[in-house]
Amino acid sequence: MLVVFKPGASADDRAKLVAAVRAAGCQTREVDGNGRAIVAVVGDLETLRDTPLDVFAGVASVIRLTKPYSLAGKEFRADRSVVRVGDVMVGGGDRFTLVAGPCAVESYETLLETARAVKAAGASILRGGAYKPRTSPYAFRGLGLEGLRMLREASRAVGIPTVSEVTDPRHVEACVSNVDMLQIGTRNMSNFDLLVEVGKSGHPVMLKRGRDATVEDWLLAAEYVLSQGNMKVVLCERGVRGFDPATRNLLDLAAVAVVRARSHLPVMVDPSHATGVAAYVAPMARAACAAGADGVMVEVHCRREEARCDAAQALSPEDFAELAGDLRLLHGVLHPAAAAKAH
Amino acid sequence: MLVVFKPGASADDRAKLVAAVRAAGCQTREVDGNGRAIVAVVGDLETLRDTPLDVFAGVASVIRLTKPYSLAGKEFRADRSVVRVGDVMVGGGDRFTLVAGPCAVESYETLLETARAVKAAGASILRGGAYKPRTSPYAFRGLGLEGLRMLREASRAVGIPTVSEVTDPRHVEACVSNVDMLQIGTRNMSNFDLLVEVGKSGHPVMLKRGRDATVEDWLLAAEYVLSQGNMKVVLCERGVRGFDPATRNLLDLAAVAVVRARSHLPVMVDPSHATGVAAYVAPMARAACAAGADGVMVEVHCRREEARCDAAQALSPEDFAELAGDLRLLHGVLHPAAAAKAH
Amino acid sequence: MLVVFKPGASADDRAKLVAAVRAAGCQTREVDGNGRAIVAVVGDLETLRDTPLDVFAGVASVIRLTKPYSLAGKEFRADRSVVRVGDVMVGGGDRFTLVAGPCAVESYETLLETARAVKAAGASILRGGAYKPRTSPYAFRGLGLEGLRMLREASRAVGIPTVSEVTDPRHVEACVSNVDMLQIGTRNMSNFDLLVEVGKSGHPVMLKRGRDATVEDWLLAAEYVLSQGNMKVVLCERGVRGFDPATRNLLDLAAVAVVRARSHLPVMVDPSHATGVAAYVAPMARAACAAGADGVMVEVHCRREEARCDAAQALSPEDFAELAGDLRLLHGVLHPAAAAKAH
Amino acid sequence: MLVVFKPGASADDRAKLVAAVRAAGCQTREVDGNGRAIVAVVGDLETLRDTPLDVFAGVASVIRLTKPYSLAGKEFRADRSVVRVGDVMVGGGDRFTLVAGPCAVESYETLLETARAVKAAGASILRGGAYKPRTSPYAFRGLGLEGLRMLREASRAVGIPTVSEVTDPRHVEACVSNVDMLQIGTRNMSNFDLLVEVGKSGHPVMLKRGRDATVEDWLLAAEYVLSQGNMKVVLCERGVRGFDPATRNLLDLAAVAVVRARSHLPVMVDPSHATGVAAYVAPMARAACAAGADGVMVEVHCRREEARCDAAQALSPEDFAELAGDLRLLHGVLHPAAAAKAH
Repeated sequence: MLVVFKPGASADDRAKLVAAVRAAGCQTREVDGNGRAIVAVVGDLETLRDTPLDVFAGVASVIRLTKPYSLAGKEFRADRSVVRVGDVMVGGGDRFTLVAGPCAVESYETLLETARAVKAAGASILRGGAYKPRTSPYAFRGLGLEGLRMLREASRAVGIPTVSEVTDPRHVEACVSNVDMLQIGTRNMSNFDLLVEVGKSGHPVMLKRGRDATVEDWLLAAEYVLSQGNMKVVLCERGVRGFDPATRNLLDLAAVAVVRARSHLPVMVDPSHATGVAAYVAPMARAACAAGADGVMVEVHCRREEARCDAAQALSPEDFAELAGDLRLLHGVLHPAAAAKAH
Repeated sequence: MLVVFKPGASADDRAKLVAAVRAAGCQTREVDGNGRAIVAVVGDLETLRDTPLDVFAGVASVIRLTKPYSLAGKEFRADRSVVRVGDVMVGGGDRFTLVAGPCAVESYETLLETARAVKAAGASILRGGAYKPRTSPYAFRGLGLEGLRMLREASRAVGIPTVSEVTDPRHVEACVSNVDMLQIGTRNMSNFDLLVEVGKSGHPVMLKRGRDATVEDWLLAAEYVLSQGNMKVVLCERGVRGFDPATRNLLDLAAVAVVRARSHLPVMVDPSHATGVAAYVAPMARAACAAGADGVMVEVHCRREEARCDAAQALSPEDFAELAGDLRLLHGVLHPAAAAKAH
Repeated sequence: MLVVFKPGASADDRAKLVAAVRAAGCQTREVDGNGRAIVAVVGDLETLRDTPLDVFAGVASVIRLTKPYSLAGKEFRADRSVVRVGDVMVGGGDRFTLVAGPCAVESYETLLETARAVKAAGASILRGGAYKPRTSPYAFRGLGLEGLRMLREASRAVGIPTVSEVTDPRHVEACVSNVDMLQIGTRNMSNFDLLVEVGKSGHPVMLKRGRDATVEDWLLAAEYVLSQGNMKVVLCERGVRGFDPATRNLLDLAAVAVVRARSHLPVMVDPSHATGVAAYVAPMARAACAAGADGVMVEVHCRREEARCDAAQALSPEDFAELAGDLRLLHGVLHPAAAAKAH
Repeated sequence: MLVVFKPGASADDRAKLVAAVRAAGCQTREVDGNGRAIVAVVGDLETLRDTPLDVFAGVASVIRLTKPYSLAGKEFRADRSVVRVGDVMVGGGDRFTLVAGPCAVESYETLLETARAVKAAGASILRGGAYKPRTSPYAFRGLGLEGLRMLREASRAVGIPTVSEVTDPRHVEACVSNVDMLQIGTRNMSNFDLLVEVGKSGHPVMLKRGRDATVEDWLLAAEYVLSQGNMKVVLCERGVRGFDPATRNLLDLAAVAVVRARSHLPVMVDPSHATGVAAYVAPMARAACAAGADGVMVEVHCRREEARCDAAQALSPEDFAELAGDLRLLHGVLHPAAAAKAH
């Protein structure tokens, strides 16, 4: 950590800061930066976590040199993590996982039909929302516990693990009992009480990026789960707030590259919520694959006209099957060894 | 609601949509828009809430003409709402309320000292966080229940009502028992389960704007609380995500004017979290007053060097007292009648 | 065009608007929208361009149903445009073009060396800046006319057409004489006088997206060039302003899909300026290819340590050659017919 | 300047960087930062401007400690600058200047009528666009030279100095001959060739903030003008790109406070373009005054229904007169001494 002083800061200003740092058990080294004093703070910086060095007299800025997350960072683990969801492996660097299904669970028949279709097309995890966070209190908010049970039923009938969103710490237990992976949605990425609860559950977690979150914020949200001892975290980029109404959100595919540079955690992409337009889902899913994502999560609905949620962004099972074929080709050409092994 | 068809849409496309609309009990009127068919849908549009008209064949876009919130809107109530917090009135159009206190409750002594200082300077509500949502899991996250009890104690000792943040539905009851107003922070504006719970509590709520929320999103979040029968909602603008690191967030003061044009709810401003820099708090508080806000919420700390949270944006009690004087002058010149009544 | 009236608008309000519309030679049709009057305006809407219907009494909003650009839109041309740059074809849907070279032309030797290297690796157009817009007035701003001449020389020596940025209407002539394609940079996308001038020149234009531009703004900027009779426009996405400092800009790859849905113009991607980090250039170039872009423009420098501009984002010739190989594979798998023809 | 090395950087990495720095004539000091080497570079850093230290092997990041602008910064001048426009003074800290007039000059009669009205209401500078940058090439783009002449005529008839936008280096001379102040619009803030030209002219300049510019970018744009020897620069905040369609742009009033903390230049606010809605102009103008701005620029039109540009955001002369009265009251209460002197 470096503390940069203002040009006019006094020796007394520096002495006070140095005293506070040493009182916390750290050491200091001073260096001159063209007329500004700079104090490098070394030692166990954790001891200074709650000491606001930036409000000391004469201080211009405090520069932290280390990342604020530790378990999520590459320094913690050199190879890339693999997370097991049911009997499916996600991540590791040479797999590309397809998660697909309806935005919301609406009826058992439709869910079952969609589950069969996406599995046949190559999806290895079924998605479906039972608890739906909706911008309006008057919109359909999901079937709740009954939706979770339908997911479990469909999972068994078709033989595919499931992921579903949890929005309330009080529902974690019911979700854990019924689905194979818990999804934290974009609106709850900073719902830290919920993160702690899913951390404690030890269940696999898909952590979507908050619409207003930097990659660093996102990795710190992952750290909330990891620091409870639950290392089964898969990140999912789904677009941030943008100013162009042409798409629902602004898909930040460079975030995939940034995550791969900074973290060992698997990272997927949700092109459906990112764009909000069915016609843009396939090109963005292909782009995610080429950018190095570990998979995509795509909304698929058998009867779009009957969908009660986000119909405009859902693919038909036929379009999804075609996309899945494209993704196999792309992944094969980028990871020829992995592709050979798969056949 | 208007359904605009693509130039090449067929009569059959229109007939199918019209049939679906009529099946739901609504009527239609067709009009020509320079070669594009336009169907106006009239009647009780609620019956169509879960019918995704935008995915019907031939449809280019669906234009909604009414605001998606009803209880929060001006149409619901012509005059401006007043919310009672303890024995303090907030809102109504001719009051300007000062809420002040530390970011987090850290010790009873400091809290009490700050409470006395801010009350003496003219604050009528004391703020203080017991449950602190922090970006890092390793940062100080508040004293929890013990902090709530300190707030109750300080409130009684000084004679000032209190507001504190609630972040978990499971804590609502404890917060209701100990503080006079529940704050929903920016990270939880879209935590709809929590909104429903504070709505059910019937307790006054300060609803901060989400960092990624439009004013419409924000009013819909308010609608979650209102639709539970709890009309005691005060909005609080605190800045959205911006691209300039010069300030912590981007304070959107025009949102105050937008809220006043669309809603009857009181709207306050938090210049401390908006800017993150103590030197910018006073100018932005004055600007909020001149923009027509119903009050400001300001972080004040007796000993900034000891603050365990957001020290860089806290004012000293002396600076707060000076700001409070400025705000009285400004409000007096803008609302001379209200000012005369106050003396 | 639809004019939506406020619920309380009077018959007199409607009559005044209708009279103004008819005076301009257009017709009107009225329809009821659940208690709000709606007037559809049909006929030659151009005659109403300068009549601000939205300020008429009683008007709530004016909804335009057609895109504001016409030459840039898909309606103007069903197939995808091809733009010839020197003897190289760009666009059309089944080609993938590599543009590469240094950020700025610094010396003839380095330029020549880089030109040879990028051509050998598969680039078909050489980039290099002679007039550099730099945020600071004290930074290196390019060699100007001398840089243009070096580009012409290198182009002849190596046999590769060139593209270079023009920033001032007074330099258009010199640029046209020396390079094969004019680049309009992000900062000048809305420099309409410059757009008109490059439109008049008839020379091929690469139009980068403004950092604050929606796709609609961007297509309207293209329309400035097209409306001068110059149809040789290639769009280039290079990232918009984002809030995450992890990358220099926020690359909006969905914009490639949006452009392909709305326009016939070729669209390329510049992953170098988008990310600002050499390590992220290759994944984003691959993603651009998979998203359906017509090519990428990549910064390549033989001696990064000597680069006077944007060194941190430049690839070495070796890294570029590897990327070019990946892109050939990806494009081949996505466009097998085109790839077969190329060999 | 501080160069921070990666944890694994070698002594050889450091030696190479140190050698390059010393070759440029600067000195170095090394310090340890918890296992990472840090090299402080001191001396005349200008000599290193074109040496990209961040691409040297082993370097993690380069931290600059000084602001990149010098003439625009507070260090250059302790008191606040005053800029003379005609016989009107702008800036200095205790004046509040009203600039008002139509968006575009449309006819001499309307201009004259508006000029008289705004002067009577207290405006001291008349605005009016002759060269209008418009998003669409088909929109009204101003009367050009004829509009400039109308401004000169109206200025003489009414006795009020004028400001008008210049968009092309080739028009600077004509603008200088006809108006008292040159405006650089938001779209041209980074049109550096134009900035250099208005810098050379020595004429007063109103420099609007780019819609995608940080305050630092904006002060660097000012530096382009200042570095030509023209110190007559007035900044004008007019909103940045935001994601909420409720207002046209996102007015960043905290930027006024940031500019006052970093620069001696006067800073005004344009609430008309910032909000795009007439009803929000007055509250934002009052907020700008309370935030410490040196003035506001407001669009006023005598006959809004006939305005050919931005009618929805123009105030009537009556509304402007009322606003001007409010602003006098507000400024008087914030700067009592200045107000006393004015009467």
